[in-house]
Amino acid sequence: MTYPRSIDSLWSGATLVTMKEGQYHLIDEGVIAVHQGKIVWIGPRDELPDISARAHHHFDGGIVTPGFIDCHTHLVFGGDRSAEFEMRLNGVSYAEIAAQGGGILSTVRHTREAHEDNLLHSARLRLEHLLKEGVTTVEIKSGYGLDIENEIKMLRVIRKLAEIMPVDVFATCLAAHAIPPEFSGNGDKWVDVVCEQLLPRVAQEKLADAVDAFCEHLAFSPAQTEKVFAAARDLGLPVKLHAEQLSPLGGSSLAARFQALSADHLEYATDADAQAMAAENTVAVLLPGAFYLLREKQQPPVAALRKHGVPMAVASDSNPGTSPALSLRLMLNMACTLFGLTPEEALAGVTLHAAQALGIRESHGSLECGKVANFVHWPVARPAELVYWLGGQLPCTVIYQGEKRDNTF
Amino acid sequence: MTYPRSIDSLWSGATLVTMKEGQYHLIDEGVIAVHQGKIVWIGPRDELPDISARAHHHFDGGIVTPGFIDCHTHLVFGGDRSAEFEMRLNGVSYAEIAAQGGGILSTVRHTREAHEDNLLHSARLRLEHLLKEGVTTVEIKSGYGLDIENEIKMLRVIRKLAEIMPVDVFATCLAAHAIPPEFSGNGDKWVDVVCEQLLPRVAQEKLADAVDAFCEHLAFSPAQTEKVFAAARDLGLPVKLHAEQLSPLGGSSLAARFQALSADHLEYATDADAQAMAAENTVAVLLPGAFYLLREKQQPPVAALRKHGVPMAVASDSNPGTSPALSLRLMLNMACTLFGLTPEEALAGVTLHAAQALGIRESHGSLECGKVANFVHWPVARPAELVYWLGGQLPCTVIYQGEKRDNTF
Ligand SMILES: [Zn+2]
Ligand SMILES: [Zn+2]
Repeated sequence: MTYPRSIDSLWSGATLVTMKEGQYHLIDEGVIAVHQGKIVWIGPRDELPDISARAHHHFDGGIVTPGFIDCHTHLVFGGDRSAEFEMRLNGVSYAEIAAQGGGILSTVRHTREAHEDNLLHSARLRLEHLLKEGVTTVEIKSGYGLDIENEIKMLRVIRKLAEIMPVDVFATCLAAHAIPPEFSGNGDKWVDVVCEQLLPRVAQEKLADAVDAFCEHLAFSPAQTEKVFAAARDLGLPVKLHAEQLSPLGGSSLAARFQALSADHLEYATDADAQAMAAENTVAVLLPGAFYLLREKQQPPVAALRKHGVPMAVASDSNPGTSPALSLRLMLNMACTLFGLTPEEALAGVTLHAAQALGIRESHGSLECGKVANFVHWPVARPAELVYWLGGQLPCTVIYQGEKRDNTF
Repeated sequence: MTYPRSIDSLWSGATLVTMKEGQYHLIDEGVIAVHQGKIVWIGPRDELPDISARAHHHFDGGIVTPGFIDCHTHLVFGGDRSAEFEMRLNGVSYAEIAAQGGGILSTVRHTREAHEDNLLHSARLRLEHLLKEGVTTVEIKSGYGLDIENEIKMLRVIRKLAEIMPVDVFATCLAAHAIPPEFSGNGDKWVDVVCEQLLPRVAQEKLADAVDAFCEHLAFSPAQTEKVFAAARDLGLPVKLHAEQLSPLGGSSLAARFQALSADHLEYATDADAQAMAAENTVAVLLPGAFYLLREKQQPPVAALRKHGVPMAVASDSNPGTSPALSLRLMLNMACTLFGLTPEEALAGVTLHAAQALGIRESHGSLECGKVANFVHWPVARPAELVYWLGGQLPCTVIYQGEKRDNTF
């Protein structure tokens, strides 16, 4: 790659964890040259060409990773479910909680009741937690509106977050998240509304970058999911799927047939599913927070995903019911501890493979020439430390689009 | 209780989670009156007597809890074990790691090699993480020196932390943590050194507030533990014990016989152990971080502890091998999710029952008249939220000994 003789900035003094090809690919004493928000040169200090830079930032040791990408969240919602969390731990059954209006429908109720500004404010506070630990790109789903106006409202809030916060935000329409109370016992009819009315409007107003669904016994069948996917395809929107979390319905293979960006959860996915995903470059997004909180026993088929070369991403699934997560870094530890990923795989899961899950692998997710200059400096000795330290919030310096981001929210 | 007419400060505007008797005992719109570092009045705003205060601090909603107490940590150590953590996840066996000098003995090596100032500095950074989330009292153990001079060095570092940091620090001598390499195959001899040389010196120099041991097949037998306990008793030092973590050796009943402050871990403790502990007021300290990281299956006998009325504490066990924890709040979530504690029990575990585990229940651990004014304001709606939000670092305002603590480390 050619580079201008005079550039914006040089960043040196740390070990670069490039994550090229999803591996550490360390560069000791590395230098990153940034111009107009992009990486224009990267390599070891003693190979640095003769470039003059307007600013030179020198780290005193430590490591630099690509900016973290959280590719699966439900950060926008009304209310929280801490009272329900407490009831469950006090022995109240799921059935009783549901009978009292709890569960996802309580979040739907609170989300519908909430003013857009309040949804924006509470989501922003949660997003700030993620940003403090190095997130530079986040995906956020709708799915608690469950009627046309409230799904649109959620997507507008997500677009607004993108405007006001120093982070790239991808919006996903997850109208097929649960059957709305008004359509109880008649999921087909809601799917028709989604396909015929909601998605065309979402596409026209450019409110979403992708379409998602929840394929599960209590939510939508593979046939219903397929309808949603077909509608999305007709509108030119890529798809992804909550699949095989609680039972094996073949959702991940279905997703692969539609060249989905990703299939997510996957606890009950099979070797055949992994093979189908590999063939279509569909990323496996692992969500250890929900697995942990639900005390699940069935682990996603990591060996099969490895064998077939399916890229694995790791995300927070941040949501009020099953993963009220405020840290993507904690998810790295859980992906290793609970699913047996290596720290290198886990880090690829929040960088290069998470970028692929959002369709931006060509421009994001690793420290490579030509990519967007989103990176994070951590005062630690080796990348595995980011995974190893359990909980809390590691301090870091975030460079977003080539500039130091004020990370004190 | 009587109180002076003119006092130092009043704190109002929040719901008080007093944790009196180990329960929430909420006071809506509560007021705390503080004088000379102590709580001199507490109650609902409309019962506030006619007191004049030099300062009046008003919170805008939220809750106030007692300062958090982390009653079991190993925060002082040299090196870290992230490389080993990564090796294990890459399939290297424990035996191979041990053959390469890994495991606890690698921490012993790094701790022995480290200069006191470096030990102090690294422990301080880790301690700061705990303080940021509301810890006002912490216990720290020695146990990586494993010779007289290095155990003394660790205890001096712990005493020094108490001097330089705005937190109460309790020091515990855990010389019987592992058999030192020099005494391999001859634990009895090390126990003799501990009892006859180290502990008398520790007592004389007032370097420890308690004595601990690790009663387990790979460490010390019940008979060896008893020797250490007898020596501690003769020196007037209270005892506590790492017991029943990996196998049932009866350590917790032994601890109770010595009126131990606490027995810790307890995964394999029995109903009879719980009964013995209840009879002697020995606290059960649960350590979910190590349980999580080791992917243990055997849970501590929470039902038996409840049945016999054994107070349960929850601690971080912060240590480089099995719980590199930087957050006590995350341990609350893990105690509930992994051990089935209720949020109320978990909060009692880091307040009143943790105070009891350190022998300071009369003066700490709850918001009550006459107790030290250590408390924390959290901008959340209900106490269960402190347990519910997974990971990250919740913002809070810490009042330590009656004064706002600068909590930006
Ligand atoms: Zn989800
Ligand atoms: Zn311990």
